Amino acid sequence: MTLIAASSGPVDRALRERASVALPAGAYGHVTADLLWPEAPQFVSRAEGSRFWDADGKEYVDLMCSWGPILLGHRHPVVEEAVQRQHRRVDCGNGPGAIMVDLAERLVDVVDHADWAMFAKNGSDATTLCLTLARAHTGRSTILVAEGAYHGALPWCNPNQLGVVAGDRAHLAYYRYNDLDSVVDAARANAGDLSGIIVSPFRHDAGFDQELPDPVFAQGLRDLCDRTGALLILDDVRCGLRIAYGSSWEPLGVAPDLSAWSKGIANGYALAAVLGSEHVRSAARSIFATGSFWFSADAMAASLATLDVLERDDGVAVMHRWGRRLWDGIEHHARQRGVAVNLTGHVALPYVTFPGDLDHALGEVFAAVCAREGVYVHPRHNWFVSTALTDEDLDIALAAMGRGLEAVAAAGRHG
Amino acid sequence: MTLIAASSGPVDRALRERASVALPAGAYGHVTADLLWPEAPQFVSRAEGSRFWDADGKEYVDLMCSWGPILLGHRHPVVEEAVQRQHRRVDCGNGPGAIMVDLAERLVDVVDHADWAMFAKNGSDATTLCLTLARAHTGRSTILVAEGAYHGALPWCNPNQLGVVAGDRAHLAYYRYNDLDSVVDAARANAGDLSGIIVSPFRHDAGFDQELPDPVFAQGLRDLCDRTGALLILDDVRCGLRIAYGSSWEPLGVAPDLSAWSKGIANGYALAAVLGSEHVRSAARSIFATGSFWFSADAMAASLATLDVLERDDGVAVMHRWGRRLWDGIEHHARQRGVAVNLTGHVALPYVTFPGDLDHALGEVFAAVCAREGVYVHPRHNWFVSTALTDEDLDIALAAMGRGLEAVAAAGRHG
Repeated sequence: MTLIAASSGPVDRALRERASVALPAGAYGHVTADLLWPEAPQFVSRAEGSRFWDADGKEYVDLMCSWGPILLGHRHPVVEEAVQRQHRRVDCGNGPGAIMVDLAERLVDVVDHADWAMFAKNGSDATTLCLTLARAHTGRSTILVAEGAYHGALPWCNPNQLGVVAGDRAHLAYYRYNDLDSVVDAARANAGDLSGIIVSPFRHDAGFDQELPDPVFAQGLRDLCDRTGALLILDDVRCGLRIAYGSSWEPLGVAPDLSAWSKGIANGYALAAVLGSEHVRSAARSIFATGSFWFSADAMAASLATLDVLERDDGVAVMHRWGRRLWDGIEHHARQRGVAVNLTGHVALPYVTFPGDLDHALGEVFAAVCAREGVYVHPRHNWFVSTALTDEDLDIALAAMGRGLEAVAAAGRHG
Repeated sequence: MTLIAASSGPVDRALRERASVALPAGAYGHVTADLLWPEAPQFVSRAEGSRFWDADGKEYVDLMCSWGPILLGHRHPVVEEAVQRQHRRVDCGNGPGAIMVDLAERLVDVVDHADWAMFAKNGSDATTLCLTLARAHTGRSTILVAEGAYHGALPWCNPNQLGVVAGDRAHLAYYRYNDLDSVVDAARANAGDLSGIIVSPFRHDAGFDQELPDPVFAQGLRDLCDRTGALLILDDVRCGLRIAYGSSWEPLGVAPDLSAWSKGIANGYALAAVLGSEHVRSAARSIFATGSFWFSADAMAASLATLDVLERDDGVAVMHRWGRRLWDGIEHHARQRGVAVNLTGHVALPYVTFPGDLDHALGEVFAAVCAREGVYVHPRHNWFVSTALTDEDLDIALAAMGRGLEAVAAAGRHG
């Protein structure tokens, strides 16, 4: 592995210059390099297994996994072969392929609460569809949303309010994650109009330390929904198939009425899904939801193959083992160097911050040093572990993080 | 070509049975076979060039083109090769590939009004983004929408109101397509809060005879936007690259401020785009918009290759020629048989109805006979012509339509 600077190289800089003209201001949304560290590379030229290469050819151990979609490593052979086989027949046709039925049956089989499946493209499609379904099912309007939670970038859930109008959020009310009293208060304030509660498997707001769900909180949401007839919506877009082989709250024994899926379910191919319980079927039959590419078969073949590999290899346990080694290794390095570090979230989606580092300046130092050493992590967002990691990757990652922690210590505020 | 019944065969029926359990009620949205004719086949098993095969192996000349996405025929070799080349490098990465910049530059070059591009997945992503941009740009809320127009299936634009809440459409006002007075009235009623006007290149509401734009209406929208500072948004999702090699209103000389694209721009690969004029760049820089798969490179490679082929082969003119032959041939057959027929819309997106056939019963007869004869058209929606059609396809199509018209005549309400 060539160790060149973790800063944007000449190819990347030239692309950024062109992108700043041909796009509003270059790459946008979650992938903008402005959220990484100063001079971070923006463009990707290649990806394979657990590694990817930036536009200037620098290689990285990938601990972001394309922000979640890559679960089994880039271009996993079983997934690729399944997609090629499907693609030779039909991808985007006048109707779905048989694979849609195969995949729906498989998801219903894999996910405990699910009795039926619908497919879409974006995570936002799935979360939005869940709100529509809850409203169609209950005939009520109000959806409770955790303050600061990310459920997509459509106007109703966009973290940036520019261009958002009052109506977009007129029927939302807010609670605090893990604070059941705040949910009960919000439900009471909207008594008679409560349609649903949307919740993430854990509190994974970008830029903040993550928080695992209090089982009492999770069960309390379920009970509240049972009492009021509102629907419990689990937004499993980010966590789905990384925390459990099934819905992410199965380990807690809490079943949602609806769950929203995307990101990892097709190992990088664009797919989203809503899984629903039997009592919501009638609403799901009545609403109208569609998209030009929602029935495309390639991504469904990818998803089925992803589930095959996950099941065959006990992939979720594999990710948990890599994530645990990474987590423990970081804590070990931090202790050795006397650096205070906050490791939060789930081992398969870990997040590292430094106490008091509110502007993420130390996080940027850490991520920049990791990148220089060939390891790609994000200073403002949870990372993602894949099954494709190897012992060599972990060694490289932990050595890089050791140096990153030293740089953080040297930055003077810690150590 | 084997001529078997145009009804759902045993494979299709078995899939439908399973789909009715594993999905809420089988295939949904625009692709449901319930909108075709009784017993129409639902599933697709293969597609190549201008043809596709249903689940039972029956072959059809494809005049729906997957509801628009297929512009050059299924699996066009130049597009497929470009996608494979890109896919060997990276599709869904931690950042975009260089191809995003290449494509943005190309679109800005091809589309007159465009100074920058943003990418997404669904047509609905693009139309919604245009509303957000108009609101961010103007600081005002109200968007004017044509009554009955289809701009996607998100709550703000879903043709089915079930699960839609008041807030979703609180800041919309409505006008009648081609009725400039109704636009002026709606603008006046919302004076001071007018943010934008969204309009389709022609009136292509499903189930109704289509209506080409009155040039005075189109220019009137532009003038009204210029006077009020509102943005003119052209929803080119359905028509884009079929009416013109550029925005669909370039032949009228009317430039929108924003245009929404999807469907045909990547010949079947999932891609959407917003193209914007320079004065909206600042708003586009400020909003937050993103999706897990919005930066995936394969679909961008497909789009660039699609533009290459369209340009090389003068593909828009090719589609217009096939569409014109189809249109004239249908009129000829109808005259010969004394069947009254309404051919409306654009030659590249034609629509056939029968006078007085409000429930589309005759349309279903026509489409069912066409399908029996190996030609796939829709009774409730405009069709789509591709560049892949051949003389043989046209001969088959027109022969089938002749028989379809005879069946309509025999159905007794006409002839």
